[in-house]
Amino acid sequence: AASKLRLSGLCFLLQVLNILLFAVFVRYSPESSPGQCPPQLNCSQRNQDSGFQQPRFQDVHIQVLLSFGLLVAFLSRYGPGSAAISILIIAFAIQWAVLIQGFFYFFLNGKIYMEAQSMVSADFCTAAVLISIGAVLDRVNPVQMLLLALLEVTVCTLNEYILLSLMGVSDSGRSLTVHTFGAYFGLMVSRILYQPHKDKRKREERQNMGHQRDVFAVVGTIYLWIFWPSFTSATTVHNNAKNWAVLNTYFSLVASTVATFILSPVLYEESTPRMVQIQDATLAGMAVMGMAGEMLITPFGALIAGFLVGLISPLGFRFFMPVLHSRLKIQDTCGVHNIHGLPGILGALLGTLLTLMATADTYGDRLELVFPLVAQGSRTVTDQALIQLGALPLTLLLATLGGCLTGAVLKTKMLRCSPDAQYKENTVFWEVKLGNC
Amino acid sequence: AASKLRLSGLCFLLQVLNILLFAVFVRYSPESSPGQCPPQLNCSQRNQDSGFQQPRFQDVHIQVLLSFGLLVAFLSRYGPGSAAISILIIAFAIQWAVLIQGFFYFFLNGKIYMEAQSMVSADFCTAAVLISIGAVLDRVNPVQMLLLALLEVTVCTLNEYILLSLMGVSDSGRSLTVHTFGAYFGLMVSRILYQPHKDKRKREERQNMGHQRDVFAVVGTIYLWIFWPSFTSATTVHNNAKNWAVLNTYFSLVASTVATFILSPVLYEESTPRMVQIQDATLAGMAVMGMAGEMLITPFGALIAGFLVGLISPLGFRFFMPVLHSRLKIQDTCGVHNIHGLPGILGALLGTLLTLMATADTYGDRLELVFPLVAQGSRTVTDQALIQLGALPLTLLLATLGGCLTGAVLKTKMLRCSPDAQYKENTVFWEVKLGNC
Amino acid sequence: AASKLRLSGLCFLLQVLNILLFAVFVRYSPESSPGQCPPQLNCSQRNQDSGFQQPRFQDVHIQVLLSFGLLVAFLSRYGPGSAAISILIIAFAIQWAVLIQGFFYFFLNGKIYMEAQSMVSADFCTAAVLISIGAVLDRVNPVQMLLLALLEVTVCTLNEYILLSLMGVSDSGRSLTVHTFGAYFGLMVSRILYQPHKDKRKREERQNMGHQRDVFAVVGTIYLWIFWPSFTSATTVHNNAKNWAVLNTYFSLVASTVATFILSPVLYEESTPRMVQIQDATLAGMAVMGMAGEMLITPFGALIAGFLVGLISPLGFRFFMPVLHSRLKIQDTCGVHNIHGLPGILGALLGTLLTLMATADTYGDRLELVFPLVAQGSRTVTDQALIQLGALPLTLLLATLGGCLTGAVLKTKMLRCSPDAQYKENTVFWEVKLGNC
Repeated sequence: AASKLRLSGLCFLLQVLNILLFAVFVRYSPESSPGQCPPQLNCSQRNQDSGFQQPRFQDVHIQVLLSFGLLVAFLSRYGPGSAAISILIIAFAIQWAVLIQGFFYFFLNGKIYMEAQSMVSADFCTAAVLISIGAVLDRVNPVQMLLLALLEVTVCTLNEYILLSLMGVSDSGRSLTVHTFGAYFGLMVSRILYQPHKDKRKREERQNMGHQRDVFAVVGTIYLWIFWPSFTSATTVHNNAKNWAVLNTYFSLVASTVATFILSPVLYEESTPRMVQIQDATLAGMAVMGMAGEMLITPFGALIAGFLVGLISPLGFRFFMPVLHSRLKIQDTCGVHNIHGLPGILGALLGTLLTLMATADTYGDRLELVFPLVAQGSRTVTDQALIQLGALPLTLLLATLGGCLTGAVLKTKMLRCSPDAQYKENTVFWEVKLGNC
Repeated sequence: AASKLRLSGLCFLLQVLNILLFAVFVRYSPESSPGQCPPQLNCSQRNQDSGFQQPRFQDVHIQVLLSFGLLVAFLSRYGPGSAAISILIIAFAIQWAVLIQGFFYFFLNGKIYMEAQSMVSADFCTAAVLISIGAVLDRVNPVQMLLLALLEVTVCTLNEYILLSLMGVSDSGRSLTVHTFGAYFGLMVSRILYQPHKDKRKREERQNMGHQRDVFAVVGTIYLWIFWPSFTSATTVHNNAKNWAVLNTYFSLVASTVATFILSPVLYEESTPRMVQIQDATLAGMAVMGMAGEMLITPFGALIAGFLVGLISPLGFRFFMPVLHSRLKIQDTCGVHNIHGLPGILGALLGTLLTLMATADTYGDRLELVFPLVAQGSRTVTDQALIQLGALPLTLLLATLGGCLTGAVLKTKMLRCSPDAQYKENTVFWEVKLGNC
Repeated sequence: AASKLRLSGLCFLLQVLNILLFAVFVRYSPESSPGQCPPQLNCSQRNQDSGFQQPRFQDVHIQVLLSFGLLVAFLSRYGPGSAAISILIIAFAIQWAVLIQGFFYFFLNGKIYMEAQSMVSADFCTAAVLISIGAVLDRVNPVQMLLLALLEVTVCTLNEYILLSLMGVSDSGRSLTVHTFGAYFGLMVSRILYQPHKDKRKREERQNMGHQRDVFAVVGTIYLWIFWPSFTSATTVHNNAKNWAVLNTYFSLVASTVATFILSPVLYEESTPRMVQIQDATLAGMAVMGMAGEMLITPFGALIAGFLVGLISPLGFRFFMPVLHSRLKIQDTCGVHNIHGLPGILGALLGTLLTLMATADTYGDRLELVFPLVAQGSRTVTDQALIQLGALPLTLLLATLGGCLTGAVLKTKMLRCSPDAQYKENTVFWEVKLGNC
């Protein structure tokens, strides 16, 4: 009974804490006018620009649902049983991320002035949390998930602040700060929580969900095609740049989908890929366009990038995931390394390459939007490229350190259940074996 | 055979009637320009304002689908079998509401001049009808549902006309005119149609749908998160006010979702809530923000309101619904009293409180949008608050009277089937026991 | 094994070809400004107009998903097994259509300059391909489908180019170029590939999917209501005209839904229609508004058109489809003749009638948008009506010739599998018997 009420009590504590912190600190931005980022604050150029041409609210409204895309993607692997907990994590993480990001970015005269854009940033963070949970889903209980969200939001915001505000990295679709960070954070937590036995059985059970998984994968893939491309371009304000980011994303996912059909009969017995694999290709094709989406100036670049990542992701599932498990003792429940980790890194490398090749001639007016510091003359293109490249190891470092720390906290005895409670929960309370602490 | 063709014949009659009335009366507004509300008509200030800054059509287009949110919510309780009839009701009620609202609002020189905004208003009405049907679903046949829609649209438009146009109540998200009205109208119809026996069996059967219900509840919850917040702000035209209404709605539903996780293990055996309960919390968190959404000027207010309603709604399901059934002889099939009725009333009371506290300082330019009559000086804030408060009993009165009348009409012998026909329909034609007349 | 890798190899070849052609020919339009359609090119008036008032990107972004509506509609008949191949077809056809349409419309100085609008046009083409595949689904293998897409995109673009650019036909919602063309192209392919035996068994198996089909039909219908009306108005740029097209589409589908409820108990045993029939009515009600949507100036016209097509479509399913099969030896797997073919023709005839009745008085400023050549005085209304009427037989001719040619290509021995391979694929690889070559 105590274990049953633990989640309930933690939710109560966290929600009351959130309400108190909101009451003390958070206010709506008095006017949604230019100048919301006051000069004495060290906010990035992009943020100031977005003040002049506010993103249309409809877009923002849809961005907020980004995390649901990931949730839908989970469903195809875990069925509706995982949805309840995922929605709890989303509900908590959005509030927490508004607070933490407010402290980093918008703290002014003792108040956080939030606006629609804050919800979008909070949701980017929530997406990173959901990616990490994808790596450990099936091996942590809801209480552990809530604490993971609590800690990851903080580290993720720190990483984002360093990259975007201090270093001036261009990463509008969040290849680094969401996809790469979320994947390696989750993998590190998975490594710390590693328990050698009792995992094989689970996977086999899951394989038997069969038909229903396919239904969810169809719905998930359609959802991603509808809502994700506008996510990649959520923070690219100018219409021109935006158009390109969305078009590049479409081309990338189209090519990675076709690539899945090429590799699938070679790697597996079946002549056509399962829907889950197509969904994975869609996610990978989008992750690789995170940084490069607004930098690519020709459609065939997006086709090539999507095609390559569509070949690499299934290869990773087939050959790299077993190595990860047996050698590095990292279990990756939803395969986030292949869907978000690798494509994110490839996207960052592609972005660096494209930065090197950027010239005022090819970009025209868009240079000011994509690389504001280069356009102002305070940086050369080479400097910007080096900084873009340096952001990758920094993100990996912070993700690994944060994952270690979080894993250690989650491993404390207080959070693990006794074997009895575990068994009972598995069989009685949890429909699809979501939590086994 | 006669009973089989009755629905067919009624549909034919009603559709031909609609076409004839549209042919005689309805025209498209000649120009979608300011001034569509001519001065000699007694239309509310808000309508005139909206003339100056037309809502973007994309928004309108999505509002029209609001009713589908409710439909999706039904699915989690009744499966696809209820969908066919619900879509028929939506298809009829939208046409009928355009006509009836046209007679009230836009009747000019013998013609109703409709425009995109008319579709939105018609859909608000349709939503109220669907909420009412939620209370009696499973106990009325399709013919009765069509007549219920016919009558409720009329009373609902009357109520809306009195509140919004004559009294000048601010209720942009329709806490009163949709949620409260729809819920109590339906409960009253349910009371009149009460039949003591033969209901227990049904409920037990339904409990066994199990897994598939969860699938629908997941899809329904995601749909509501995506499309509903922009519904709450459908008629708040100015960008600023709109932003706040949407953000407040998000915060409210986030908090009510967490609240469900707090109460669920206390009230029930299970350690995590079922998806249907999370969907109910989402709906309740949105209903409470109907009136207050655009009035709240701090995010923590929305968090508190959502949190409280997220605690009250499951308590209502657990303790109040059995009392309602046994003492007041009101069966509430989908629990609309807890999801729409109570949250709607709480939202109206919260709106009254916020109206009292409204000052020109805190609202700034938004005062003219939220309380146009106060901003023009023709009313004090206290007057406005009293009128907002008075609108609540008036709505309850009209809903109860309308529900009584409608229930009496539906109870006439002509509309009830003979027991034989009933049995046959139940077993042969109706998959999920939707209609048993 | 060779047959297993054939699809894989074809995908590889086509994707590499696409990448090469994109690399050589396709560039993003240097500036998304007016004048993207250079004067020396013979592009239609409408295209030039759209240059002055770019469609908002959000709209475009949603249009791109139009094909998914059709995909969702398929699911209700074939379950998730058909989804994987359909997504492959969409992914290939979008790239191919951008190329082919680029060669027809935007070829300038040896480069195709594409922009967001190009994606929308490409998606219109993809929709036509999916409609055709709906006619032969279940009787062609994936390799044949890819080749069908390859050929149909070319003929479809040719038809569109002749109608919209050379003849100046007004067909903004694509009654002719998508619905009619796609349906009759597919029916002709189906005729050529006709094999008398072994089809009856299949259909019976499918009828047994039962419950799950209904779930997909509910989701599909909701998806169509949400996303399709804005499709009908995708290329009507001016806000006024757009409003009317969307409202007319809503009224049409509302009336056709009610009509389904009228005919269903007369034609079939059941007292309410199945969800699949409602979904068909929704599609038919939208197809009939393709050309007429922006021309209708009174809502009751849309109600009558939707009502009639809602009566004709089920009659076609009941009485015309068996004749089509037994006499003309055309099998129509998804009934595209009743859902897209007939309603498309009726829409074109209605459009011709409305063109005849168009006067400057009733249209006002909108005349320039709907009939630019009439407004400029270079054509009389009667001329325009004759041209609209002439476009119908021309479309039918091109669709029939293209379908014959494509069918002949698909029938070549190289593309048919040996009976052994067929059996194996059917039982092992294909879940829902999608491909039996």
